[in-house]
Amino acid sequence: MVDHHQATRHYAYASLEDAHIYVEGEAGYTLAVQQGGCKGDDSGVIGAQKLFHIYDLRRGDAFVYQFTEPRMSLDQAATKPHEQLAAALADDLNAVNDMIRARMASEHAPRIPEVTAHLVEAGGKRLRPMLTLAAARMCGYDGPYHIHLAATVEFIHTATLLHDDVVDESSQRRGRPTANLLWDNTSSVLVGDYLFARSFQLMVETGSLRVLDILANASATIAEGEVLQLTAASDLATTEEIYIQVVRGKTAALFSAAMEVGGEIAGKDAETKKALYDYGDALGVSFQIVDDLLDYGGTKATGKNVGDDFRERKLTLPVIRAIAAADETEREFWVRTIQKGRQEDGDLDHAIALLAKHGTMESTRLDAIAWAEKAKSALSVIPDHLLKTMLIDLADYVVARIT
Amino acid sequence: MVDHHQATRHYAYASLEDAHIYVEGEAGYTLAVQQGGCKGDDSGVIGAQKLFHIYDLRRGDAFVYQFTEPRMSLDQAATKPHEQLAAALADDLNAVNDMIRARMASEHAPRIPEVTAHLVEAGGKRLRPMLTLAAARMCGYDGPYHIHLAATVEFIHTATLLHDDVVDESSQRRGRPTANLLWDNTSSVLVGDYLFARSFQLMVETGSLRVLDILANASATIAEGEVLQLTAASDLATTEEIYIQVVRGKTAALFSAAMEVGGEIAGKDAETKKALYDYGDALGVSFQIVDDLLDYGGTKATGKNVGDDFRERKLTLPVIRAIAAADETEREFWVRTIQKGRQEDGDLDHAIALLAKHGTMESTRLDAIAWAEKAKSALSVIPDHLLKTMLIDLADYVVARIT
Repeated sequence: MVDHHQATRHYAYASLEDAHIYVEGEAGYTLAVQQGGCKGDDSGVIGAQKLFHIYDLRRGDAFVYQFTEPRMSLDQAATKPHEQLAAALADDLNAVNDMIRARMASEHAPRIPEVTAHLVEAGGKRLRPMLTLAAARMCGYDGPYHIHLAATVEFIHTATLLHDDVVDESSQRRGRPTANLLWDNTSSVLVGDYLFARSFQLMVETGSLRVLDILANASATIAEGEVLQLTAASDLATTEEIYIQVVRGKTAALFSAAMEVGGEIAGKDAETKKALYDYGDALGVSFQIVDDLLDYGGTKATGKNVGDDFRERKLTLPVIRAIAAADETEREFWVRTIQKGRQEDGDLDHAIALLAKHGTMESTRLDAIAWAEKAKSALSVIPDHLLKTMLIDLADYVVARIT
Repeated sequence: MVDHHQATRHYAYASLEDAHIYVEGEAGYTLAVQQGGCKGDDSGVIGAQKLFHIYDLRRGDAFVYQFTEPRMSLDQAATKPHEQLAAALADDLNAVNDMIRARMASEHAPRIPEVTAHLVEAGGKRLRPMLTLAAARMCGYDGPYHIHLAATVEFIHTATLLHDDVVDESSQRRGRPTANLLWDNTSSVLVGDYLFARSFQLMVETGSLRVLDILANASATIAEGEVLQLTAASDLATTEEIYIQVVRGKTAALFSAAMEVGGEIAGKDAETKKALYDYGDALGVSFQIVDDLLDYGGTKATGKNVGDDFRERKLTLPVIRAIAAADETEREFWVRTIQKGRQEDGDLDHAIALLAKHGTMESTRLDAIAWAEKAKSALSVIPDHLLKTMLIDLADYVVARIT
């Protein structure tokens, strides 16, 4: 281990093929995690960029992690709306990343940064914290607490992912092995709890009871939605209304809270805060509908496999609509494959054919676009601002994947 | 199902043998859970007392629960300190129970009250909420929020139990099947999250940022302790210091926070709040040491089986001390049984013999008593009060199980 480590110091790129895990990050920054070095020992930092590099993460003993990444700046060529947001919010986002690193540390339990580094440091686009930062800045906020709130939102998101992985028994997320595969379910559960507690401490530091109220309510909606999904998932009686509730829990509740707390910390009026909330809610619903749609014919760019929802017997909007329009034979197909879970080769193709037959992919696509439009129009009460334009572009971009 | 249900209404006691689960509660109140009735339909309530009665809890569909219990009062013969506390705090405790029921409900996800009813409603002594109520009342508080805080503390405790059950893969708690055996791991994880979120909402309602701070910090200590236990458990290098950290996370952090928030909500000075905190902390450590001690020779009254910790390779104080005093052969025994987990018939008896040989049961027992004394002396700065006397008696009672 030590020899390996030493070699890495001197031949950073050359030694990468020997690494246990080597995944290229999506987020445009680098994480180099090392084991065996000393805290604060700069010579141990790997100079490589856009690399996710972990040595023997399964080892439970002393673990030292060190990071190096190219800081984002406005100079960067940014074409996609979330990249534009990242560039415009670069300083804030760097402060959020610093806070995330500082707060996920645990003096006593090294397993915590091991597991969270895996999730917090790699692959994510920091979409949710960017919503908070954009909302606060767009509302003219110039205090320090939008950083706390953005970190809070990312911690809640990460904790939810960790618990989701246990629930889904997932083995891949964003194209990388999930924490519960690398370690175990119990680490995922407990480290998720730790991140929830940490996010809770961060919120308290803002000193705003109203912010705490918003995030407490979002947390309840998230948890309730998850349980609802668990029971509603394979139930053919699931309605579009229940689906939207599940979607709110899965995605929209944190998007809307992330936006609203930005306005709250900036001390804005009720109308502005409602507009921010509505934008986040509609963006989140649109985002999740698109995600569910791509599950029946998207690319693997999301790290999700086509057909995952079908195999996991999760009812999503195109299927709910196809079931509503099904004749007797088709209904029997859905009962067998989704309700009873007795799936055979060729069933996924047949399912996709049924969605096409009833035009539910197309009607779902139109719904996603309508939600994106709703998000955009919610911002109409907000004065013109560079960040507002980017948020509007973001709503268009979310549905661009399906248009 | 309906026939069964109808029969139950008319022949409450007679039909109990048919029930899927029938366990006598410990807490001196009754829960009658029914499925298939109508909400608010009083005729569906079973008149039996001291019964825990669940029909086909595994069914995922519509679920109606109704409760009936004998309300506690000062008239009740109460001999044990926690029973004395329950009698003295009867009105408050009834209000806490009402709040717990109201807040664990979920309009959308019936699985939530199913799982929580299983844990929240049966078996527990409400020890933690009683600490909050006692602290608040002892400090002269006469507002409404000690009820919220007591319910908060119980929700946090219940959520922790749900997540612990996943971690421990337990099949029994308090002599009853655990939720993850009755349902599944995913329900335990997600319903635990829901209770955390609900507890968070309850705290926010108190309007006290200082209370939120105390409980956020306790939550972090709890989660950190759980992760620490996970990694430290089978590691023979675990020190007494690490053990105490784990114990704080497992038990003492919530005891101390439960006490402190009572003083906080009553607006008391820093010295009083520190005394309350110190009492809760020392009581919690004592409580957990006693629990761990009984694992090597207690009774099954706790619902815990003798030798559970040994079989699960959890290092506790008597074993940590026996390992420190071990000769070479004994060390090999601990390496094989705890570190490597290769246990054979007779190993538990041999382990107990080694604890006896090195006197570590006795030294651990003395430690538990010292912590109980520390708890009692912490209260010396609090003016005389009936509840203070009961709390002092409670500290004695905790160690009475081992004296």
